[in-house]
This record gives sequence, structure tokens and C-alpha cells, in this order.
Amino acid sequence: MRTSIATVSLSGALTEKLTAAARAGFDGVEIFENDLLASPLTPEEVRARCADLGLSIDLYQPMRDIEAVPSEEFARNLRRAEHKFRLMERLGADTVLVCSSVSPLAEDDDALAAFQLRRLAELAEGFGIRVAYEALAWGRHVSTYDHAWRIVEAADHPALGTCLDSFHILARGSDPKGIEDIPGEKIFFLQLADAPLMAMDVLQWSRHYRCFPGQGGFDVAGLVGHVMRAGYEGPLSLEVFNDVFRQAEAGPTAVDALRSLLVLQESVGLTEPPAPVVPTGIAFAELVTPDVEPLSEILEALGFARTARHRSKPVDLWQQGEARLLINTGPAARRDGTQLAAVGLESPDPAGAARRAEALLAPVLPRRRAPEDAPLDAVAAPDGTELFFCATDRPELPSWTGDFEPTAHKSPVVHTSLVAHESPVAHESPVGGGIHRIDHLALTQPWHQFDEAALFHRSVLGLGAQESVDVADPYGLLRSRAVTNADGSVRIALGVGAAPSADEGGRAQHIALATGDIVTAARRFRSAGGRLLPIPANYYDDLAAKYELGDGELAAYRELGILYDRDADGAFRHCYTETIGRVFFELVQRDAGYRGYGAQNAPVRLAAQHVRRPVR
Amino acid sequence: MRTSIATVSLSGALTEKLTAAARAGFDGVEIFENDLLASPLTPEEVRARCADLGLSIDLYQPMRDIEAVPSEEFARNLRRAEHKFRLMERLGADTVLVCSSVSPLAEDDDALAAFQLRRLAELAEGFGIRVAYEALAWGRHVSTYDHAWRIVEAADHPALGTCLDSFHILARGSDPKGIEDIPGEKIFFLQLADAPLMAMDVLQWSRHYRCFPGQGGFDVAGLVGHVMRAGYEGPLSLEVFNDVFRQAEAGPTAVDALRSLLVLQESVGLTEPPAPVVPTGIAFAELVTPDVEPLSEILEALGFARTARHRSKPVDLWQQGEARLLINTGPAARRDGTQLAAVGLESPDPAGAARRAEALLAPVLPRRRAPEDAPLDAVAAPDGTELFFCATDRPELPSWTGDFEPTAHKSPVVHTSLVAHESPVAHESPVGGGIHRIDHLALTQPWHQFDEAALFHRSVLGLGAQESVDVADPYGLLRSRAVTNADGSVRIALGVGAAPSADEGGRAQHIALATGDIVTAARRFRSAGGRLLPIPANYYDDLAAKYELGDGELAAYRELGILYDRDADGAFRHCYTETIGRVFFELVQRDAGYRGYGAQNAPVRLAAQHVRRPVR
Repeated sequence: MRTSIATVSLSGALTEKLTAAARAGFDGVEIFENDLLASPLTPEEVRARCADLGLSIDLYQPMRDIEAVPSEEFARNLRRAEHKFRLMERLGADTVLVCSSVSPLAEDDDALAAFQLRRLAELAEGFGIRVAYEALAWGRHVSTYDHAWRIVEAADHPALGTCLDSFHILARGSDPKGIEDIPGEKIFFLQLADAPLMAMDVLQWSRHYRCFPGQGGFDVAGLVGHVMRAGYEGPLSLEVFNDVFRQAEAGPTAVDALRSLLVLQESVGLTEPPAPVVPTGIAFAELVTPDVEPLSEILEALGFARTARHRSKPVDLWQQGEARLLINTGPAARRDGTQLAAVGLESPDPAGAARRAEALLAPVLPRRRAPEDAPLDAVAAPDGTELFFCATDRPELPSWTGDFEPTAHKSPVVHTSLVAHESPVAHESPVGGGIHRIDHLALTQPWHQFDEAALFHRSVLGLGAQESVDVADPYGLLRSRAVTNADGSVRIALGVGAAPSADEGGRAQHIALATGDIVTAARRFRSAGGRLLPIPANYYDDLAAKYELGDGELAAYRELGILYDRDADGAFRHCYTETIGRVFFELVQRDAGYRGYGAQNAPVRLAAQHVRRPVR
Repeated sequence: MRTSIATVSLSGALTEKLTAAARAGFDGVEIFENDLLASPLTPEEVRARCADLGLSIDLYQPMRDIEAVPSEEFARNLRRAEHKFRLMERLGADTVLVCSSVSPLAEDDDALAAFQLRRLAELAEGFGIRVAYEALAWGRHVSTYDHAWRIVEAADHPALGTCLDSFHILARGSDPKGIEDIPGEKIFFLQLADAPLMAMDVLQWSRHYRCFPGQGGFDVAGLVGHVMRAGYEGPLSLEVFNDVFRQAEAGPTAVDALRSLLVLQESVGLTEPPAPVVPTGIAFAELVTPDVEPLSEILEALGFARTARHRSKPVDLWQQGEARLLINTGPAARRDGTQLAAVGLESPDPAGAARRAEALLAPVLPRRRAPEDAPLDAVAAPDGTELFFCATDRPELPSWTGDFEPTAHKSPVVHTSLVAHESPVAHESPVGGGIHRIDHLALTQPWHQFDEAALFHRSVLGLGAQESVDVADPYGLLRSRAVTNADGSVRIALGVGAAPSADEGGRAQHIALATGDIVTAARRFRSAGGRLLPIPANYYDDLAAKYELGDGELAAYRELGILYDRDADGAFRHCYTETIGRVFFELVQRDAGYRGYGAQNAPVRLAAQHVRRPVR
């Protein structure tokens, strides 16, 4: 299907919007009237610019308050319409959107509406223009797609058809199945938008909270299925009004937008991009730092051992059980400080995963590697984190670990697997600090990319998204949404602040490390010189009121600063290290059934972190 | 009445919140449990800190999901409550808030609820604690204040009363008149919050959009009147959950909060602060600038004349008709660039206006003046703009113009009044550029102060607030709300961006100048070398489609870049100069009946301004 986007969905001047749409790969645009009015380009220049960019102008929109009005008013409306048809001739647009009237002058008279729309279509026909009549969810008398269609049917003119908009249909709770009863050639246009499920005034909902398909709660794909079965052959076009996108850069928004249409087409069966290759674990997390000392101290106290060094880059491999961390002191670190820069995703088919990512517009990263290094496919996530699709010591695939050379061991971790597999990576049960794997990664997203990030991780990586939760920080509300694979071996918590922050570069990131016995692990960490985030005594008084924990258990938590949460299926215990740059570590002990991340403890943790300033 | 505020209404750590509440002048606080849990202070330390700050702890809150549950669950709840009562003893808090249950375990059984609440009150009584039971608007079985009261009445225990919350009552649409039937001594607590009128899920509405009384759409004062007539004698306490306040600095928020309670008490007749003295005009607008040249060029082209200079400061008076501008090249300008720094409000009683402002917590500005200068009372608006209450050439009052000495005239403005009143200020009809007065001032507010700004201008200055309107800028949505006096001689348009901006210091400001003939005024400006903001031709094609304007009229607008709007009562024509620093000028020709500011043209103007970068 051809893809299109309404200029109102993107920020900036009209020319910026057109450029962003074309660069992302859209085939066409809907020109939103206000964007044209505000542009210094003449309609002819806009037409030429679109042609240069390879964009068709699929729709001019909107015309409002046209139909079912007294005849003298309708005469004025026709005059206004004729002005617009002349403009569309200059623009080279052949379809105009007419929204159902919201005017207090409009009468509840379908016959009059049909008669006047037919007159409008007759006028349009003379200009070679088609009129697409759409029911606004808040239209005065016409607010459902089937009502709009009955009027179009009654008007019975070849230049008059209907425009369907997924938001207006789904926000009203209409059954989209009836779309299949509309002849495909009378569906002149299809506008797509999703939205989070909210109980609010539909006009405000539409104007401020629309989002791209797959980012909200509507079954947009189901609706598109009905439209396809009706025989629609026009473009799939996005029309999204959203306060966030209005502020975000047009370029990345356009990419996010087109990705949503690619995923939508796949889910409806219209296309078959390379299938998702769901990661089966976290192979490694890579930190960049200008100074290894503070990180090394924490990692050693946590029981990690530096086991290998990259053959050609200043990168060390630290590990414990299946938890592997790369510490990179390359040039980027001096610019950005200590941060989590890359994640290695254990992939059953790294090349296939990369092919899907590329098909879904993930920026493919150049391979900056030495000739002897293992090939590593990598793409950039919306927040800039590099995602490597890799294999760890699987005989059939080149292992990323082959690029590392073992170092002399200074820690008590036993590396028997090193001999068995000729790899420096250990697969033994933990000996050092009781840590056996990475439980999850938590990455605070740039404000304008939160919805994009969730869709990216779902569609590109094939992860499942959990519900959003709100968390109160002392200085503002945060929102968090986790994406995971089915067995929980890959969990990434995506976070975002309530408003864009001046300090986007300082967004917190953390690595949660799984242990089977958090009290022992935390004690070891502390006795090895590690400092745990102190948690106020009041928190433990409240725990005592809430849960009937054993006295010894509660005392240990209180002593060490361990937080506790419980859901119907199990408990979750967690504690935190201090922060280095943007990064801190969490120790977690997760009962098998517990699905969360201790969100209810986050306000206490965040307040404690505000008290303890980061080391650097 | 005593005033109180819930700690959840302010940002920061508990100690920051307490300090801010005390500094603003609150008598007490409600301690929100999560704030205590996250604090490193023990309950005894919190108690001591409050005592030091002169704050009472009026409420500990909340306890949830207590009542109408199976007996074994209730036993657990009592155990939990006992923990909290011990904590409250340490804290020195004697009233606890119990919210109606939202638990799926709760039964729809008022008798059981009353029985269990009585048991809870018996336990509380032993600790000297009172239980205030409140209906949450989304309570599972108890969601209205009268239902909560019936249960309290049935429980019939001296340590059990009800807590009323204006949000929960008004958001449900309950009639607050019935409050008068509750005995005053059984109303243990009164929580106040306002909210904008929104059709949305009440829980989300409550958690994110509450605001201080007078900042939303509820009749909070009316409700308080009923509560007073019931005989309530406890504090007026604010409990506001709001995404914006969570991010804003606690200090200014606390002042804004207390101001809202002072205004509320006045409107209910509980207090009599000095009466508002509504300004009767704009005496002057003062611009600071590091370089007078660019401003002088624009002002001269607009037909202003530099008529006087301040005796002791580097401040020039420019005028034309009743429009007076001060250009200040003092030290502040070098720091902040060109901006509108102060507004002189023509006041029937400058001293009285200042007394009211001070009573309503407006920061009174020190008088930095020479001994011979006229006394000028000034306060700071929430955005930092200095507001001077002044008199212009009224015999009974010292005139600010007395501080200025006339300069030699280089312009065609006729200053006869100068002789008559021994003042350099002209009262003649305009000769220069056809400008006769300042139509309005437009001031973009800091993001976190928008609601405060509207309340400030209404309550401190006695202006009326118009409805908010949304305006689409190419790079984000803006919101605008005007405050005016009755005859429109003072109009200030308060604007705000959709999200906090890194560039808060660059917030646009403009001065709109009224003319009776905009085409002539704009032509004069242009022929005097002034540059008007170019408006795209597409805009005029649309005007032609929308309105039946005379050809000559439309051609003149198109030539000069004049925008046009019309409402039921008249037309509005306006055009813009280029921007110097943060400031630009607008020429407006307003028909008497037109009440707006041309908001529908704002997207076109904003886009044109993005194309034309500011001169400096």
C-alpha cells in the first residue's frame, strides 16, 4: 500500500515537514490547510517541492461546516469551496477532506446534507476534484462513519465518497465491521491514528493525545483489515494531533510514523518483512567511562572479575555467572561521561534480527571493527543506545567473545568453561558475589521519544510491552514501561520524565543484577567496601505495618537498605549502589512469579538518590 | 481561619516542603505518608522541625482500604492501623485521614463499614487520635460525602468524624448544600482543591489536574460557605495533586497556594483584606535594553517621540497619544537583553493598590529612587515583571511624570498639555503615527507559573480573566489567557508554552499599540523605514475565501502584512514589527465590540516569526 502522512503530524515549517516525510520514505502527504497558509511558498512552489521530493499530494484538508445549512449560507460555502478548488488546482491535489459540520447553523436533515454535498461534488467535478466526506466524532448531527456513508450513498455522485478515520470510528466505540458494507471505490481516503485509552472529552482526546498505530490502545490493524476487505485501494495515511510530536524534531517523528505503518501492514498481512527474532537473553551491557576506577571498585565489590580484554579496543570484559559487563574507555567516554552505551542481545539469528531491524527503519550502525573481529550487527535504539545482535559461545555462530583475550584472574570466580569452550566466558554458577545474571536494564528515554521507544522495542525486537506505571519523584512525576521477552530473560524498563528536561544528557540508567539471596549478596558487597544507598528507617516501620515479615528478615533489610515488594505471585527484594555518571546498579532477588520492578518503592529510592549526590 | 497545606502539594524532600510552607506563612501541614517514608528524619525529628518552623501537623494521611471487609482482613487492618497510630504519637499528629475503600474485598454493607470504623475509632481514642473518614470520588461503595457522613453518624463514636474534600464533592457533581446538615464538630477536616472543568476519568483528573482554589472551574468558595455554616472550626487545608506543581520550586508554589486561600477567605467573607483597586489604564510600559538604537529606530518609525528623560536614571520617555514607553538602559539590560521589564498601571489609589498586593503576598519591590523622585509603589508579578501603581498628571496625587524632564522635540507630536500641567506628558490626539494608546501587553509566562499568573492578576489587580485558548506554533502548542478590566483599557494576554523550555529566558513579549486606521499607520511606519513582518500570500487567498472583503481592503492587507479576524461584534486588524531581543510591537485596529486578540491568526504570525529570526 502507498503510505502518506498529514503535515499536521509533524513539527516545523511546511518545507521541513515535507523534507522529513520524504526522507523517512513516505510516498505522499496530506496538506493541512494551516500549514499552507503559514508557508511563504506559493501553491505552485509547494507542488514543485513535493514533486522534487517524490511525494504525491494525496489530500487537501480540511473543509469544515459545509453541509445541511440554510441556502444563503450554503451559497457562501460554495463560494468558499470554489476558492479552495482553484487553490487545489494550483497545488495539484485532487481529493479534499470535508468534515461533518459542527456549526450551530447545521440542521439535522440528512436529505439536505446529501443534496448540498451532491452540489459540492458537482462543483468539484468541474475541477477534477473528489470530495471525501468524513464524520467527526463530535460532529453536530453526523458523528459516525455509517451515518456519513448513508449521506454519501444518498447523494450518489461519482465525485463524492467517504473518508474513514480510525480515531473518529474507534473513539466513538463504533463497530468497524460495517465498513465492509461500503463499496471500496467509495472509500476515497483512510486516515489512521491510534490513541491511549482514556475516558475524556473526545475533542480534547483527539486534539492532544492521538498517536501512531501501535502506540495506543485501539485495534487500528483490525479496522484496516475491514477497510481492505471492503476493497479500498488508496493510501494508508497518518493523521496524528499530539502535543509531544508538535515539539519533537520532524525527522525522527517521521521515521517513527512510517515504522508504525510498516508494522501495521505486517500485522494486517499486507507485507511480509523479515520475521522478528526475539532475543533470548542479555549477552552483555556495555558501559563507557572516562575513568575505570570508580566503576571497577563497585564491580569488584559486587564480585565481578575482569576476565578478558578486547583484542583491538580499550574494552574490558567483567563477568560473574551469566552477567557480563563491558567497560569501554574509548573516545566517546571522554565526551559523554560514564553511561550505558550498548546492549548485547543474545539472538538465535543475529543476521535475521538485523535484517528485520533494518526493514523497520532502525538506523544500522557501521561496524567499527578490526578485520579479525567477529561480525556484529548493531542498530541504534531511539535513545541512541547501540543494540548488538550477538551469539555467546554457540558453536554454529561466530561468538563476540572471540574478540576478547583472557586476562590473569584476580577473583574467586571459577572459569572452567573457559577451557571447555576455548572462550573466556564463564558459564558456572556464581562464586563471587552471588550474582548470576542481569535481571533488567532501566533506560530513561528522551522526553519526545517515549512512545516511539516502546513501539521500537516491540516491533523491531519482538518484545512484549507491559502497562505504563506512574512513579512520583520528589521533583516530578515519572512514567515507566517495561518491555520483555516471554521467559523474562530480557527485561528493559523504559522510563521518562513528566516534561522535557534541560538535562536530557543526564538521564539515569541502571543495571539490575539478579541474585538468589540478596541479603548475602548485599552483605558481601558491603564487606568488600561497597556502599549501598541508605533507605530511611521510616520505610521499614511502614513495611512492618504492611507485611508480616520475620523480625530477622526485616532487621536485615533495614540494616542493608533492601526494599521489598510483593504481588499475588511472589516477592521482590532490591537495593542500590551509588551512582557513577548516569549509571547505578541494583541488586534484585525476584521470586519466579513476580512480574514487576518494585515501582511502589521507586519514590523512596528516588528521594534517597536526591539526598546522595552522584560521585561524578 | 487557620491555613494548612498537604505536603504532597509541594515538590522536593519533606524538609524542603515544610520550609516552603512555613516561609509562605501557612499555619500547619498535612503530612502525606510517602513524604515521611522517603525522609531520613525520624518522626520525632519531623515533629521538632515543624515546631521550629511554627507549623502544626494537622493531619496524617492517608489510611486506605480499612472498612467493610471480612473480619480476618479487618484484624490485619487494625494491626496496620495500630502501627500508624504509634507513628502518629511520635509525630505529634492527632488526626488521621481514612479514605473510603477501593479494595475488591470491600463489601457494600454500610452497617459493617460503620461497625469497623467504630472499632478503629475506639483504637484511635486510646492514642488520643481522631479518625476523619472521607469519601473518595472513586470509592468502591462509598463515593459521596453524604454517604460517608451517614456511615460516620451510624458508627456514632466521638473519635470518628468526616473529612470533606472539595474535589471529591464537586467532581462528582454532588450538591454541597447538604453539608450544612452535618454538625460542625463532626467535620474533622476540610481539604480544598479546585480543578479545570474537564470531561475525563475522575481518578486521573484528581491525580494530575487539581489546582489551587480560584485556578480551576469549581465553586470552591461556595462549598466553603456551606462548611462554615455547618459550624466547622478546623483549618482550611489545600490538597493538590498536580503534575506541574510536582516539578515547580516549592517556595513560589507555597506562596501561590497561600494566596489562593487568602482570596478564598475574602470571597467567603471570612476576612477583609484591603479592597482591590482596579487599574484604569496602562500608564507606561518599560523596556530595558543594552542598546537603544534598534528600539529607537522602530519607535521613531511608529511615530513615537522621545519627549523626556528621567532626572536620575538612564531612562527615556517616548510617547504618542496616551501610549507611553520608557526605555531603560540601566545595568539590568546588559544582563538580560532587550525585554519588557515593568508596567505602570494607572491606579485610582496607588497606595491602596499596593496595600492589597502586599496583603495577597505579592513581593513588594524596594524603591530604588532618588530622594526627589515621586513615591512609586511596585510589586513583582509571578513572571518577574515589575508592576508600578501610579498616577499620571492627576493634581491630587504625585505624578510619576514629575521625575522626568522634557527634552527638545524632534517629532511632529504636539505637546500642549506640557505647558498646561507642567508635565512632559502629552494628552493630545495623535499626530505622529496614528497611535493613540496601548491596546494590550502580551507576556509569555514561565511554564510553571501560568495558573499562578492568572490568579495573581485577578486577585491582586482585580482584573477579570477570559477563557484560555490554544494556539499552534510550528514547534509546539501555546496556551493564552487574557486578563482585562471592565472597559478594556487594561488588557494583558498571558501566554505559556506546552512544555517547559530550556530557553525560558527567551520568552516572547509584545506591546500592542492601538490605532484607528491600521492601513494608514502601517504605511507611515513602512515609509519611515520600519519593517513589517511579511505574511504569506496564501493567507490572503484564504481571507478572500472566508470573508467578503472589498478588493482594495484585501489588497492593502496583503501589501502590508495585516492580519484580519472577526467575531459577532466586530473586526480586528493587526500587523507586527520585527523582534528586538524578546520584544516586538503589534499595531491593532480593534472594533469596539471585538473582545479577542486575533488568536486564530497566531499560527500564521508565529510561523512567519520563525522564518524571520530576531535582529538580536
